[in-house]
Amino acid sequence: MSDQLERLNRLPLRDNLRGLQPYGAPQLHVPILLNVNENTHGLPEKVRAAIVAAVDEAAAGLNRYPDREFTQLREALARYLGHGLEASNIWAANGSNEVLQQILQAFGGPGRRALSFPPTYSMYPLLASGTGTEYVAGTRGPDFTLTAAAAADAVKRSSANIVFLCSPNNPTGTALGLDVVEAVYDAGAASNAVVIVDEAYAEFAHTGTPSALSLLPGRERLIVSRTMSKAFALAGARVGYLAAAPEVTDALRLVRLPYHLSAITQATALAALEHAGDLLANVEDIKDQRDRIVEELSALGLSPAPSDSNFVFFGGLKDPRAVWQGLLEAGVLIRDVGIPGHLRVTAGTEAETTAFLERLRELV
Amino acid sequence: MSDQLERLNRLPLRDNLRGLQPYGAPQLHVPILLNVNENTHGLPEKVRAAIVAAVDEAAAGLNRYPDREFTQLREALARYLGHGLEASNIWAANGSNEVLQQILQAFGGPGRRALSFPPTYSMYPLLASGTGTEYVAGTRGPDFTLTAAAAADAVKRSSANIVFLCSPNNPTGTALGLDVVEAVYDAGAASNAVVIVDEAYAEFAHTGTPSALSLLPGRERLIVSRTMSKAFALAGARVGYLAAAPEVTDALRLVRLPYHLSAITQATALAALEHAGDLLANVEDIKDQRDRIVEELSALGLSPAPSDSNFVFFGGLKDPRAVWQGLLEAGVLIRDVGIPGHLRVTAGTEAETTAFLERLRELV
Repeated sequence: MSDQLERLNRLPLRDNLRGLQPYGAPQLHVPILLNVNENTHGLPEKVRAAIVAAVDEAAAGLNRYPDREFTQLREALARYLGHGLEASNIWAANGSNEVLQQILQAFGGPGRRALSFPPTYSMYPLLASGTGTEYVAGTRGPDFTLTAAAAADAVKRSSANIVFLCSPNNPTGTALGLDVVEAVYDAGAASNAVVIVDEAYAEFAHTGTPSALSLLPGRERLIVSRTMSKAFALAGARVGYLAAAPEVTDALRLVRLPYHLSAITQATALAALEHAGDLLANVEDIKDQRDRIVEELSALGLSPAPSDSNFVFFGGLKDPRAVWQGLLEAGVLIRDVGIPGHLRVTAGTEAETTAFLERLRELV
Repeated sequence: MSDQLERLNRLPLRDNLRGLQPYGAPQLHVPILLNVNENTHGLPEKVRAAIVAAVDEAAAGLNRYPDREFTQLREALARYLGHGLEASNIWAANGSNEVLQQILQAFGGPGRRALSFPPTYSMYPLLASGTGTEYVAGTRGPDFTLTAAAAADAVKRSSANIVFLCSPNNPTGTALGLDVVEAVYDAGAASNAVVIVDEAYAEFAHTGTPSALSLLPGRERLIVSRTMSKAFALAGARVGYLAAAPEVTDALRLVRLPYHLSAITQATALAALEHAGDLLANVEDIKDQRDRIVEELSALGLSPAPSDSNFVFFGGLKDPRAVWQGLLEAGVLIRDVGIPGHLRVTAGTEAETTAFLERLRELV
């Protein structure tokens, strides 16, 4: 045991943390970063300038606590989402991880059980553990799909109190049909389950893919979470949010830390939302690159999953570690999500995508 | 029961949240705000410009996740604190509330017990509850002081796993002697207790008041928490931090949400730290106003507690609610912390302090 670990173990750590390693996609310095599903298009100059101007204005009052209710931001997010949503339906926090943590703080905890369907976003079990919520894993079909019947059955058998559905799913990229969300919601009635549809990548879905936002009316246990990290190119600003019934946002007010969202975060997010059009134009370009990756990987004899996100999960690799390493040596970092035979790549700019595809062709 | 509360109660809230109201000092629009111990001096123009320039630079990479380790910020905070501290001793989060929550996530939880000494910072029991940690209250002397012997005795009798000492204490304003910290630390050896000295207001202490930072060497269960909300006039930016043994920061890496500190928060805090001198000059002015309040309240026959902070807690009021209301009607908002016969006022600028004192004189 290292000296450092030995010193850590002398501290009175919670039992369920003993022996754990911190979360971490490697933060390597590589020219082409296609590993954590960032939006590789920088902010348009106009948006950057708007953010700086908004922060300048906010800085004048930075000695004061921020608006604890971040009312303007909630109004702007409601307008952006549409679907008849109002500020009372909206909640936000420092990244969707914090949004999800607050949901578990309100509705999870000791004696409660959370369910999700791996492979899916790797933070769900960690967030459950961090809030003392039991975590159970449902199963997907052999092609990583999830049917309404199978999902509903898992909800019933687990008596889950909280269900995470990731759509489009990370790391596979595929969106769920709304029939799956409806079936899970209905199956959760018996255990009064809160159902979270994590739509972090929703803006990248193919035209016509419906959002679970359309299911919110009349479903007070349904929560749709979103993020500004991806389509809005604001991963560095840490803004996640959700839409739900007003009583859900009231519940989150009981667990949020007071003033959790800084005045500069609020100003930054508001400025970006005012330029949603400019930012979503880049989304169209990313979707083109994503479709190009799927097409070219298929042509190479690999098996990409259908993707509604800004990344592509692909199988058919004999030695994914060697491919990952070969790409890294060429200055392209992608993600090994630990699923045999598979890797995941973020759709970058046209040039980044070309660099990835050219090097991959040499490696497979 | 209101319709809204009824709808909330139909949701599967955690049992310990049922019937609670969200935290909230009222956010009223009043000309003179002396209620939440903000630094009422705005940021100097030079510091504001430096923050905006730093955010502009950070905005260029805002599409990327921030440095998860916020290394530059930890280095700058270590330099600011001195005492031979290094980046490995430092941790930061979105306000010291989040720092304290992370400590409870790492070292508290079900089966663990937290102790503090009311009247003290009202978030300690809320943070304990939010993390499933049992909370027990120790007692202070009739003048709200805390002796080493009494504090150590409370630690032993409670077998606390976590002890919060607030120094200078909020809401009373008085700093603890280091003998209290040492006695509590030693008494906590039996239960391997983590001892947190919350020094949110340390920069306002009278010259010569020692910091618990000087006790860190050799005490791996001791944590000193600080904030940039007060002396650095950055309440709106939400930056809290702590100094402790490197194994404590390793423990917090197990519970923090990945990328919890945004790139703009890091940039803002760094720019402010580069101008620490300008910001701390205002602190001297605030200390003068604080001392003036104590002096004038005494002259009025009231009983201010000795204050090492940017606020004054004072007793001797027959009808504190009427005084609070009378001040509000004159456009001065101070804080009723719910202690019979007492109120708390933040030391403002010279003009704000004068307005408070003049109106108070009419009311008592």
